[in-house]
Amino acid sequence: MQHLIPLDNLVAALSRLPGIGRRTAERMAMALVQDQKGLMRILANALLEADDAIAACERCGNITLSSKNPCDLCIRPRRDAQVLCVVESPGDIIKIEESGGFQGRYHALMGRLSPMHGVGAADLRVDRLLRRITDEKIEEVLIALGTDVESDATSSYLKEVLSTRNVKVSRIAFGLPAGSAIEYSDATTLARAIKGRQEIG
Amino acid sequence: MQHLIPLDNLVAALSRLPGIGRRTAERMAMALVQDQKGLMRILANALLEADDAIAACERCGNITLSSKNPCDLCIRPRRDAQVLCVVESPGDIIKIEESGGFQGRYHALMGRLSPMHGVGAADLRVDRLLRRITDEKIEEVLIALGTDVESDATSSYLKEVLSTRNVKVSRIAFGLPAGSAIEYSDATTLARAIKGRQEIG
Repeated sequence: MQHLIPLDNLVAALSRLPGIGRRTAERMAMALVQDQKGLMRILANALLEADDAIAACERCGNITLSSKNPCDLCIRPRRDAQVLCVVESPGDIIKIEESGGFQGRYHALMGRLSPMHGVGAADLRVDRLLRRITDEKIEEVLIALGTDVESDATSSYLKEVLSTRNVKVSRIAFGLPAGSAIEYSDATTLARAIKGRQEIG
Repeated sequence: MQHLIPLDNLVAALSRLPGIGRRTAERMAMALVQDQKGLMRILANALLEADDAIAACERCGNITLSSKNPCDLCIRPRRDAQVLCVVESPGDIIKIEESGGFQGRYHALMGRLSPMHGVGAADLRVDRLLRRITDEKIEEVLIALGTDVESDATSSYLKEVLSTRNVKVSRIAFGLPAGSAIEYSDATTLARAIKGRQEIG
């Protein structure tokens, strides 16, 4: 391939997007430089606009407009201000909001404990969580992390840290996903569903 | 999902990249706005730089630096200036150059005939091809288009247009790809390989 440095730079930048390998980045870059409708400039402007206009909420870590900080979810009076849902990232907040199953406020850790990737407790927003529990008189912390090893470790760590505080700590339930059958469930999911069984009727 | 207009605009722009659906674009946009290493600005700058610095070669249609037009392949004296290889797009030029199998010059049509997508002969760079044949005293036109229906139609069309000119017209061979076995070849590939058989020994 003839080497055009601006093209190489574009491929390198695109390769840093999640899930985009070198071949895909090359295909994207070629499509962009051949595009007749100004897509390169449209995309560049969208990126610059988003970079200017979007910020992390200083309170919960959610993404918000730079001009609206703290974010809507933090200041909306209708929400239950005494329950904090702890998530890994802003994307999780969006998923939980879409579910309609939670009416309290959020706190994004911006990661999870991962010794393998050099992420320790000091890299997460735990200090701010503890401060919020005091300042906002939080009564319940709902941990909404996944089921992988790192999320389990993070959850255990939080439970320990929070045990010295006067708050109820809960974790979202694990069990069969909606629409699934026993027949197709894996052993770990089934074991967790049985362990988390609830009395009915 | 809370609607942040700059985020929506970014998702819309990313969705226009080839092979990127809405869900992938959303995931990319979320990763970009949460990125701590300035990736949004890096990508935006790479796009703006490429948009400024890269242009289509006015002669062959290949991508080139705006400051080098016509492109290197068009002006390099070592190349066989009397053989023109007709391709669909600049990406094809790169592939053929990588193969090392061609030493002449190129002409990118920037598309192929596609009545379904409203692409007619006037939308391709055929006029310029005819002008180049005269101006550059071309002796052979090698058509390097694919094996799909639209490429076949484009190839037939070119053959007809060029029949009035005093040039040899050839098309790249179709047959078994390197490293493949008869056992795994499809019927069309085999039929084409048999039709294109060459005498040996």
